[in-house]
Amino acid sequence: MTGWVRIAGLGPGNDSLVTPEVTEALAQATDVIGYIPYVARVAPRDGLTLHASDNRVELDRSRHALDLATQGRRVVVVSSGDPGVFAMAAAVFEAVEAGPASWRQLDITVLPGITAMLAAAARAGAPLGHDFCAINLSDNLKPWSLIAKRLRLAAEGDFAMAFYNPRSKSRPEGFEKTLDLLRSTCGRDRLILFARAVSTPEERLTVTTLGDATPGMADMRTVVIVGSSRTRLVENSRNLIVYTPRSTPE
Amino acid sequence: MTGWVRIAGLGPGNDSLVTPEVTEALAQATDVIGYIPYVARVAPRDGLTLHASDNRVELDRSRHALDLATQGRRVVVVSSGDPGVFAMAAAVFEAVEAGPASWRQLDITVLPGITAMLAAAARAGAPLGHDFCAINLSDNLKPWSLIAKRLRLAAEGDFAMAFYNPRSKSRPEGFEKTLDLLRSTCGRDRLILFARAVSTPEERLTVTTLGDATPGMADMRTVVIVGSSRTRLVENSRNLIVYTPRSTPE
Repeated sequence: MTGWVRIAGLGPGNDSLVTPEVTEALAQATDVIGYIPYVARVAPRDGLTLHASDNRVELDRSRHALDLATQGRRVVVVSSGDPGVFAMAAAVFEAVEAGPASWRQLDITVLPGITAMLAAAARAGAPLGHDFCAINLSDNLKPWSLIAKRLRLAAEGDFAMAFYNPRSKSRPEGFEKTLDLLRSTCGRDRLILFARAVSTPEERLTVTTLGDATPGMADMRTVVIVGSSRTRLVENSRNLIVYTPRSTPE
Repeated sequence: MTGWVRIAGLGPGNDSLVTPEVTEALAQATDVIGYIPYVARVAPRDGLTLHASDNRVELDRSRHALDLATQGRRVVVVSSGDPGVFAMAAAVFEAVEAGPASWRQLDITVLPGITAMLAAAARAGAPLGHDFCAINLSDNLKPWSLIAKRLRLAAEGDFAMAFYNPRSKSRPEGFEKTLDLLRSTCGRDRLILFARAVSTPEERLTVTTLGDATPGMADMRTVVIVGSSRTRLVENSRNLIVYTPRSTPE
């Protein structure tokens, strides 16, 4: 048996957002590896071993997957959303680069998925319908000064912004600093969207302004989208519509 | 019959990247509306009317969809990739905002898809594995000065960047100016990826440096990804690996 690694995106939560390509990879796998809640989304079956691990062990998990593939196993590393956006793909390639030469011979493929910011944007309308930035607000792996610099530049460029990992128990103050910085650069009237657990039974959408936003509106399962100066809220009796027009006047 | 509009993303080209949610909407539709090559991806069947239109008529197409839904039709507006990223979702909401009050009562939903930059990133490894910007290089709907400003700020922030619509027959010089600007701000050694028609038989990936990149490497079916200063190319006998590490040192 020839081993391989597929780094697969399960989308934001609902099975109707999992691509057929990912479903097929899971059907062929001998092993599934990932963070506990993501592995829990894969149905057990004969011949499939599920390896669930805790958060913050991405490199260990990657090495485990690469080791198993070297032994001829067919391994799917599962991420929520898209594996290439603040998820497992970069971790696996970090492990490959630092690992034994044999890992560079392996068949490793990334299978894209619906990432959280695009699932959230779809629910709200089209807030990312024009130029935008995606920023990971976690300061686990980069200094806060770099996050603050990128926020300032994104605001100066009038990009819409999507934030991953806005807030965790271990660093409750970071998101408060983010909101303060954005209020001073974008103004209090700028639209902000909090999208929690989109496409799951726990889904909750909140649209407000930077002036009225509070840190408690975000948790670990929330993606946050801040509009550009052009982003608009359209009153509608049926659906929430927050969108950024395609054009910017001269 | 109660009409509705679903603005659906068909992904980058291969049917294995179309979500079950989109497939189900197409199965329920009475009408499919979109740009000719996207409508061509929908299989004809009894009871389904296909309305294919040319490029650059996004608002007409949106009004047509909203009109049909008002008459009780079930209308899917198809986009390639994700409809919320430089595609039809913003156009439909522009039409709703400017249109008759009855359009605001309509059931309108956006169904996300795999957008071109994430399909391209997956093929290459994980070049968007850290903070990044998505910029539409077309100056049809915004001034070049704004594009140039955003490119400079994104480079200053050391974001990776994904470019949509890098080059068209009507404005061949814009992408050359983009490459010149990036060479002067990011240096000639910065990695750049040209990903054409990912997941289709015409797929072609080219990885090079800004110093060696030429405008002719992009066309209308190409998405371009420029790495951050941290983006790396790993030599590998099996797969192309271009990735951006998750961490940035202090």
